[in-house]
Amino acid sequence: MTQRKSFGSDNHAGAHPAVLRAIVDANSGDAVAYGADERTEEVTAALRDTFGAAGGAFLALNGSGANVLGLSVLLRRHEAVICAESAHINTDECGSAERLLGTKLLTVPAPDGKITPELIAGQLSGRGDDHRAQPGVVAVTQSTELGTCYTLAELTEIADFCRASDLRLYLDGARLANAAAYLNCSLAELAECADVLSFGGTKNGAMGAEALIVMRPGLAEDVPYLRKQQTQLASKMRFLAAQFDALLHDDLWRANASHANAMARRLADGAATVDGVDIVHPVQANAVFARLSARHIATLQEDWFFHVWDEAESVVRWMAAFDTTESDVDAFLADIRATADVSSTVSTA
Amino acid sequence: MTQRKSFGSDNHAGAHPAVLRAIVDANSGDAVAYGADERTEEVTAALRDTFGAAGGAFLALNGSGANVLGLSVLLRRHEAVICAESAHINTDECGSAERLLGTKLLTVPAPDGKITPELIAGQLSGRGDDHRAQPGVVAVTQSTELGTCYTLAELTEIADFCRASDLRLYLDGARLANAAAYLNCSLAELAECADVLSFGGTKNGAMGAEALIVMRPGLAEDVPYLRKQQTQLASKMRFLAAQFDALLHDDLWRANASHANAMARRLADGAATVDGVDIVHPVQANAVFARLSARHIATLQEDWFFHVWDEAESVVRWMAAFDTTESDVDAFLADIRATADVSSTVSTA
Amino acid sequence: MTQRKSFGSDNHAGAHPAVLRAIVDANSGDAVAYGADERTEEVTAALRDTFGAAGGAFLALNGSGANVLGLSVLLRRHEAVICAESAHINTDECGSAERLLGTKLLTVPAPDGKITPELIAGQLSGRGDDHRAQPGVVAVTQSTELGTCYTLAELTEIADFCRASDLRLYLDGARLANAAAYLNCSLAELAECADVLSFGGTKNGAMGAEALIVMRPGLAEDVPYLRKQQTQLASKMRFLAAQFDALLHDDLWRANASHANAMARRLADGAATVDGVDIVHPVQANAVFARLSARHIATLQEDWFFHVWDEAESVVRWMAAFDTTESDVDAFLADIRATADVSSTVSTA
Amino acid sequence: MTQRKSFGSDNHAGAHPAVLRAIVDANSGDAVAYGADERTEEVTAALRDTFGAAGGAFLALNGSGANVLGLSVLLRRHEAVICAESAHINTDECGSAERLLGTKLLTVPAPDGKITPELIAGQLSGRGDDHRAQPGVVAVTQSTELGTCYTLAELTEIADFCRASDLRLYLDGARLANAAAYLNCSLAELAECADVLSFGGTKNGAMGAEALIVMRPGLAEDVPYLRKQQTQLASKMRFLAAQFDALLHDDLWRANASHANAMARRLADGAATVDGVDIVHPVQANAVFARLSARHIATLQEDWFFHVWDEAESVVRWMAAFDTTESDVDAFLADIRATADVSSTVSTA
Repeated sequence: MTQRKSFGSDNHAGAHPAVLRAIVDANSGDAVAYGADERTEEVTAALRDTFGAAGGAFLALNGSGANVLGLSVLLRRHEAVICAESAHINTDECGSAERLLGTKLLTVPAPDGKITPELIAGQLSGRGDDHRAQPGVVAVTQSTELGTCYTLAELTEIADFCRASDLRLYLDGARLANAAAYLNCSLAELAECADVLSFGGTKNGAMGAEALIVMRPGLAEDVPYLRKQQTQLASKMRFLAAQFDALLHDDLWRANASHANAMARRLADGAATVDGVDIVHPVQANAVFARLSARHIATLQEDWFFHVWDEAESVVRWMAAFDTTESDVDAFLADIRATADVSSTVSTA
Repeated sequence: MTQRKSFGSDNHAGAHPAVLRAIVDANSGDAVAYGADERTEEVTAALRDTFGAAGGAFLALNGSGANVLGLSVLLRRHEAVICAESAHINTDECGSAERLLGTKLLTVPAPDGKITPELIAGQLSGRGDDHRAQPGVVAVTQSTELGTCYTLAELTEIADFCRASDLRLYLDGARLANAAAYLNCSLAELAECADVLSFGGTKNGAMGAEALIVMRPGLAEDVPYLRKQQTQLASKMRFLAAQFDALLHDDLWRANASHANAMARRLADGAATVDGVDIVHPVQANAVFARLSARHIATLQEDWFFHVWDEAESVVRWMAAFDTTESDVDAFLADIRATADVSSTVSTA
Repeated sequence: MTQRKSFGSDNHAGAHPAVLRAIVDANSGDAVAYGADERTEEVTAALRDTFGAAGGAFLALNGSGANVLGLSVLLRRHEAVICAESAHINTDECGSAERLLGTKLLTVPAPDGKITPELIAGQLSGRGDDHRAQPGVVAVTQSTELGTCYTLAELTEIADFCRASDLRLYLDGARLANAAAYLNCSLAELAECADVLSFGGTKNGAMGAEALIVMRPGLAEDVPYLRKQQTQLASKMRFLAAQFDALLHDDLWRANASHANAMARRLADGAATVDGVDIVHPVQANAVFARLSARHIATLQEDWFFHVWDEAESVVRWMAAFDTTESDVDAFLADIRATADVSSTVSTA
Repeated sequence: MTQRKSFGSDNHAGAHPAVLRAIVDANSGDAVAYGADERTEEVTAALRDTFGAAGGAFLALNGSGANVLGLSVLLRRHEAVICAESAHINTDECGSAERLLGTKLLTVPAPDGKITPELIAGQLSGRGDDHRAQPGVVAVTQSTELGTCYTLAELTEIADFCRASDLRLYLDGARLANAAAYLNCSLAELAECADVLSFGGTKNGAMGAEALIVMRPGLAEDVPYLRKQQTQLASKMRFLAAQFDALLHDDLWRANASHANAMARRLADGAATVDGVDIVHPVQANAVFARLSARHIATLQEDWFFHVWDEAESVVRWMAAFDTTESDVDAFLADIRATADVSSTVSTA
């Protein structure tokens, strides 16, 4: 199994060679710590420009850290967050938002991982009642945890609704690059809707680096203190800056994401033709969600690494990364086909 | 100024070449994320062995993160922490312990940065009174923020006092290597006193990696969840593991620390002979604290980067790093001598 | 409207005359503050005995305060709480548990407000995965927010499941008296299942007093500090003690609760015979949930105070209190009948 | 001892008869809970008027609760509080501010319990440095924990400094009435300096009731939610309102405080003439701090209840309450004289 490509997650991949080169290049001489070095200044300025971010750009250590930081910028002390049940902040961060921010997550069931103004509106009935948690922020993920993308029109609609409803909008962009690649739009176009967003490097070829992008002027003032308090301030910041430097250069971020998306597409297209395999969400980024029989899953997992997403529904997640090759996909597809459990129809709970 | 060595901090240095090589080597193929890879398993096992840690070893992203994580393991929900006024957790983490843990720091004035059983005892008078914050943990830093080291006997005395007083002992080891080098002892000998400690990589040649060492069995169970909640779980963990792999190999950590200590010693010895310059703390690690006139400081800062530690006292901090050379020190000393403010005696507020 | 009995909540009632007399009696001479007075000692001892509480009994200022305090005793720092979607801690405390404890509530849809081992089990799949919130406590409400009661057998089943699953059990007993009255059992029998529970006075004739009952020895040690930190320590505690003194005397608590239950029963029985009115939950305590048309609700609210519980479902909540009289109920029933919206069938979303 | 007046604290006294009468009067018929009743509306309107509070007045359950609530209104999420070492929030609330708000208290040694612009300024040097806790609020206590009062001029000076320094000012007024009585000024004059303050009822004849006064418009919006989250919202609020109704009527609050102040004055004047007894702080409110020998203290405590304030300094605190009589004081003075330890001079550590 160790030789085969992991379809477990895009963070099973290593760092892109250009990222590594940038790190090595950055390791020359002294640099003032904690972000007061030139490289960090340049890269954060470039991020600001790229996103059209009036507030600023700040580097952080990981995705959960960036999410909690972003929410902490937007939430008044007593406020709650509206998000999809499937949101990473709800399911995959061990209750970090609740514990570090003391906020309540008001979750809504979201088909394909995408929330809508209607779903948000359903959480507003308790407003003004001091017994109810008071929503202050809506958090969306782009691309979503289910491998789908909001269209720009959908984002605008959400943003308009939020502004009309005194809600701020946070965008978890751990895989924002994949959405930009899918929608064939700029990062600035994607970011415009948000008050604050994250821009993920780690899942797209970085070694470990995320950016917090503050779109609105006036919101950035407290970020340095919040970042430090929340233990997301890197000491030798130049090495985070170097990673984004590499990703921004010639839009490597887009090339990486486009490739990963294409590999997921290839995998989904191939798997869809296999008997007993159903693709359960639109494949718009680098994730494929498929339903196949438990026996089929078990057999495949003998040789390939991937996660069962929903045991009751017999759904798995397969992810492609910047370094997944066509032959990786094809080898996986060959095995999916070879082990297909044609005799059984998947029955779900 | 850009050509000259920074004496501002040991984290102005880059990564040791061996650390960088290890990172590059680690960038091969896939690795399961979040620490479930072989490299992480091996390195954490090696750390456990090195420290004689019955509880376990866990990698973290930075020093503040490791400190908050370590305290979170030891504190009951309502408890306070006794530490020196000069403790990093008190002065340099933007109130992180208070905000993320909700704990109160009960500070004691500590000569040379070292607390004592007597100082700890002075904070215990409110025990059992539900109006007073209840100390549950004592936090010491080794080597201290003032460049001094506790002797093993001093640590034992503190540990004995803590155990007799139902206090747990946390050791902030961001510069533990420097203490081991100074005391010429093993990491295990240093760690024995503590219930939990951190072992810093970043200030000693790593790119950005810290370890949390849990000495007592039974204390480690909650660490994975606390680490994730507190946003200190790295995604591509192999790259943190690689850094400690390099530092542990042939005790590179000790060589780096010994060298930095020697450079600080050389700087202190030289500076002590300059008129108008006083060394204000014993130089036992890689930091030199010196009192010199404001005019002298200002002149030196035109060409050299370092921090004024205490403006009222006219005290500066000079730090050596693993890559500080004898000629760096000698060049700095030459300038210290050349700019000496012989006419003035430092008068302090 | 001001002359008519409120069916809005049991806390629209004032204090029972015996409670008020006890308060007046307590106002004699000095008493050491913060619970170190004799009256508090006697009353908490009486509560301990009544509940068979090996840990102890502690007075608190209000129901939310008691709930947060109770959970804080039981939760390890990183842990989450499993509770019903309809739980007061989830819907009616403005996110207090999340903000004060940093805990996540893992909610389950619970028919009639009662959770089951099966529903709890559905929240345990992420255990041991450091990305998932880790449940540590199950919180049940007795009588529930929907006016139903767990049987003793149901509680035992839940408690057995919790113990077998390393989960602690918290019981929100804001209306525990109503459950004891309905089940015709002792408070000790009700409490036996729990590790910690609250015993509400306020909704049952007190002016404002709740008790936290710690059933298991060893859990009570930190309560005084947690109570003080969480601002639930009363200064002139004798006046809280006096209220429980009155409620415990000759089991006034049971008489009050039985009466309120009977009034709710009378109301439900009468309303059930009205065309267009449906009783939607078993009436086992002092609350009646009824579905009637929006027009009917609006007409009734012109003269009577009560809350719409679920606008979409057109469901209202009517509550009886210790001082609701038969003629209050009959007058309300007469109006319900007189305004009945016979022409319409309630259609729900 | 049970017959003798306690000089232990002003909350050892019971409730003033007028307060109790108001409570009894309030216990008539139903009242909407949680503050939506007429009585609460009237009393909070009266408090707003009395203080000239543009923001509003909110009732709370106890002093710690009001303090934490007040600070939560004023603090940005990451900010710290500057206060005197002797501040109640620092020494007597078990770390509540740290735990519930996550804030750091930056304490200054304050002679006679009163801080000054100079002392505040000493805590501002780390501003703008993201490693340092960032002060956002200054908290003063009036009258102070040491029985002294800020003059109006002193308060104005602090307020001016705060406004010039982008600091908000919180005033802990648990004993504000005693200051108003001493300074012979209105509550509005005292409050003018502050952004938010508390107004204590409990220590001045209430049974248990505090008010939070929000002076600045725009600051009050979040108070209802913060109050509920922080478990300080009373259910049967009318009974808190009734207490303030009584205290405001004919300025009973001032009569109570003036009397308590006079009794403290009488006690201090008498004690000052006793050999071996030194009054250590100006007696400007209802507290007397005296130094006397440990032997003298021990003898007195056989018959009288009071607290040793500082064991090392051999200083005790004697407090008078609204119901302390001249003969209580004189009896106490007689015993102080009779047991005077003339042979010894107090030697302090």
